[in-house]
Amino acid sequence: MHTRFTQAFGIRHPIVCAPMGYITGGRLAAAVSAAGGLGIIGGGYAGAFGSGPDLHDELALVQGHTFGIGFITWALARNAGMLDEALSHHPACVFLSFGDPAPFAPAILRSGARLICQVQCLRHVQEALDAGASVIVAQGTEAGGHGARRATLSLVPEVADHLAKRAPDALLLAAGGIADGRGLAAALMLGADGAVVGTRFWASQEALTPQAAVERAIAANGDDTVRTQAVDALRGVDWPKEFSFRVLRNRLTDEWSSREAEAWDAFGSLREAYAQAREQDDLDVAAAIAGEAIGLIHDRPSAGSIVESMAAQAQQLLQRGTSYLSR
Amino acid sequence: MHTRFTQAFGIRHPIVCAPMGYITGGRLAAAVSAAGGLGIIGGGYAGAFGSGPDLHDELALVQGHTFGIGFITWALARNAGMLDEALSHHPACVFLSFGDPAPFAPAILRSGARLICQVQCLRHVQEALDAGASVIVAQGTEAGGHGARRATLSLVPEVADHLAKRAPDALLLAAGGIADGRGLAAALMLGADGAVVGTRFWASQEALTPQAAVERAIAANGDDTVRTQAVDALRGVDWPKEFSFRVLRNRLTDEWSSREAEAWDAFGSLREAYAQAREQDDLDVAAAIAGEAIGLIHDRPSAGSIVESMAAQAQQLLQRGTSYLSR
Repeated sequence: MHTRFTQAFGIRHPIVCAPMGYITGGRLAAAVSAAGGLGIIGGGYAGAFGSGPDLHDELALVQGHTFGIGFITWALARNAGMLDEALSHHPACVFLSFGDPAPFAPAILRSGARLICQVQCLRHVQEALDAGASVIVAQGTEAGGHGARRATLSLVPEVADHLAKRAPDALLLAAGGIADGRGLAAALMLGADGAVVGTRFWASQEALTPQAAVERAIAANGDDTVRTQAVDALRGVDWPKEFSFRVLRNRLTDEWSSREAEAWDAFGSLREAYAQAREQDDLDVAAAIAGEAIGLIHDRPSAGSIVESMAAQAQQLLQRGTSYLSR
Repeated sequence: MHTRFTQAFGIRHPIVCAPMGYITGGRLAAAVSAAGGLGIIGGGYAGAFGSGPDLHDELALVQGHTFGIGFITWALARNAGMLDEALSHHPACVFLSFGDPAPFAPAILRSGARLICQVQCLRHVQEALDAGASVIVAQGTEAGGHGARRATLSLVPEVADHLAKRAPDALLLAAGGIADGRGLAAALMLGADGAVVGTRFWASQEALTPQAAVERAIAANGDDTVRTQAVDALRGVDWPKEFSFRVLRNRLTDEWSSREAEAWDAFGSLREAYAQAREQDDLDVAAAIAGEAIGLIHDRPSAGSIVESMAAQAQQLLQRGTSYLSR
């Protein structure tokens, strides 16, 4: 496929594997890039909470491929040294989400990497451009994991209009709710140059996702996720209040998801219990982190086959698009 | 344009004007249908709260056009006689949202009208099909007015997959977040046969929308709406708890939107104040009912020109779709 994004990054398909912390390791990123997409290793909390992924090991697995590294910006601010380590591995891009990218942009741009900034609302866009982002990711609320309230379908064209006026050379990717070629083709129609895909790759063979979580998610449909701040509050991770966490509903979220204020009052009260549940794959407590697109996902194939089938389906739909024109 | 939906309804463009209560009167519905789309008069609460629109007058304005009538299902159940009145005007379709359509389906189908059911999650789909719906509208959370939590981008293909398996002849429309040809083209890529458009027609010349509300909405962007149950609770309309109301943020929602439980405890406490604010166009209290797509809307043109430009832009994008294919 051919978009401004594939051209800029020298890749074959406008499909980016989201930098999911503890999920997108070097093996998954390498598989996506090898198939013609772009894999971005999830640096997560950048080790700010002591137990980050071992970036060094993961980066070793992706050498020889075009790849990127992503961080949660507000956490990177607490452990900024992690950025230097990441840059020493020469990523093609650094993908920052959830916070002000400005403090990190100079080092990233100086290294020759591109800055990709993920935004959750129109308000974030200009901040990202001012910092020097050359790619904006417009992430809708349907996305799994952390995000905010606006939905993909209208956020993407609104951001596209902003970029057309203020930064026509900036590239735009759509994120949230995209798990197959239909979503990719739709993203292109909305004005994006490609798509960032999380949940579909979360349920791929190469992801670090525990098999029990994938099995539970595959058995669910798209109605079975919830976006809430309660999980972070209870497990004691002080996320900025504008963001929340979309996960598969489970016993914990059924009990707490609509009692967010109470959960903040009980900040960290489930820290130990949550960590233990995670270690034991107790998915009634620990969250399986899936987006609404889980309803489109029924298997755990290889990441390479996901890239291929997503691209093939999008191509077919784009080719058939003219069948909607009146004859 | 040409889809299964345009064919089934004998119309030129797969663009439906949402049946917005107090907004989509006969003049707007007629203008949309005259331009080649399908206008559906908003029957709202079906007079269940005493002050519904005068259906008789609105229906007079749409005679001679293909048109439909829509109702809030749980409210129609409290004033079912309104359905007979509506059917006596020979609508091409009845559009039911927010509740079990089964009690009303037999009369609708007997009259020769098609049953269109709007759903907000996968769970609703089979109920609608069982009732005899021939068109399913998958409405995402980004929609203005009443709705629920799932977003359009992944709900539409998930419903499409369900229909492909269980009811391949049923048609599918996408609703929520669609305000221009980009959204329409995206909806077709996602597997829909057309789009239901609310906010864009809400801000059209023929809509019954007060000019002050349109002006306030046009000045806003897509970040400026909120989905909450608090407004209905405070004004004393007992909506089923699975639904909520997306409106432009204002003083009332800033104060109450995140205090829904408290608002239910204060049920009806602002009934008089809200009715008065509405009468006086006091938009700090009364809601301007816009969806996230308001960020794509900057004017109040005629409904006919909206249909035309939406179709033209979608056609252009679909034609250009092959430019994304590798050469």
